[in-house]
Amino acid sequence: MTATGQPATRDPRRLIASDRVIGTDIRRPDGTRIGRIERLMLDKASGRVAYAVMSFGGFLGLGEDFYTLPWSVLRFEPRQDAYVLDIPEEQLRAAPARTPEGTDPATDGAWEEQIHRYYDAAPYWGI
Amino acid sequence: MTATGQPATRDPRRLIASDRVIGTDIRRPDGTRIGRIERLMLDKASGRVAYAVMSFGGFLGLGEDFYTLPWSVLRFEPRQDAYVLDIPEEQLRAAPARTPEGTDPATDGAWEEQIHRYYDAAPYWGI
Repeated sequence: MTATGQPATRDPRRLIASDRVIGTDIRRPDGTRIGRIERLMLDKASGRVAYAVMSFGGFLGLGEDFYTLPWSVLRFEPRQDAYVLDIPEEQLRAAPARTPEGTDPATDGAWEEQIHRYYDAAPYWGI
Repeated sequence: MTATGQPATRDPRRLIASDRVIGTDIRRPDGTRIGRIERLMLDKASGRVAYAVMSFGGFLGLGEDFYTLPWSVLRFEPRQDAYVLDIPEEQLRAAPARTPEGTDPATDGAWEEQIHRYYDAAPYWGI
């Protein structure tokens, strides 16, 4: 299409509005709904999405709760119109950081390292 | 703080919620208000913010209008609690792409290259 020699990276369909991401379902690979994306946390310096805060209600009898997920653990699945989170239920339930609504998920660098290690997620810094 | 040897990149204050970015003023370096951020356009593949769509009302007698700005031309200025856009008025008025509300700003790769060239902006792809 262009003369840059990078047609694969010039696909305009890669863009999505942030307000379309928020409210999108998060599902298991089998399609079961887990929750929805409540907000995104951006890295001001790089302009990268660092985390998605997932709201999570009525699952296994729990009330509404929030999980902060490294963005890199979510994969968009167009056929489901949802993000897919491929993490065992036990691992999600035992996640180290449930952040209350309205607070920033990151309070220190150690927390960020811990949460990325827990989900075995690629860090968004230093990429 | 950590043992990674990268203290500068571990500053937790770099994170901001996407819903706090939307609605934030865009100002000139002298503090004059130009408009506000209406939405963000994300690159799905990399999770980077690619564009900010700026709404722009009552400036020079024009009605409300929308400009799609490469994210890299905006600089956050904490003292003003605003993003600063350092572009001459004439250049902004003559910008090649005013996207109507609700449509995706990018329709093809050529448009993206054009808008980045116009603003002399660092491209978000291939960084």
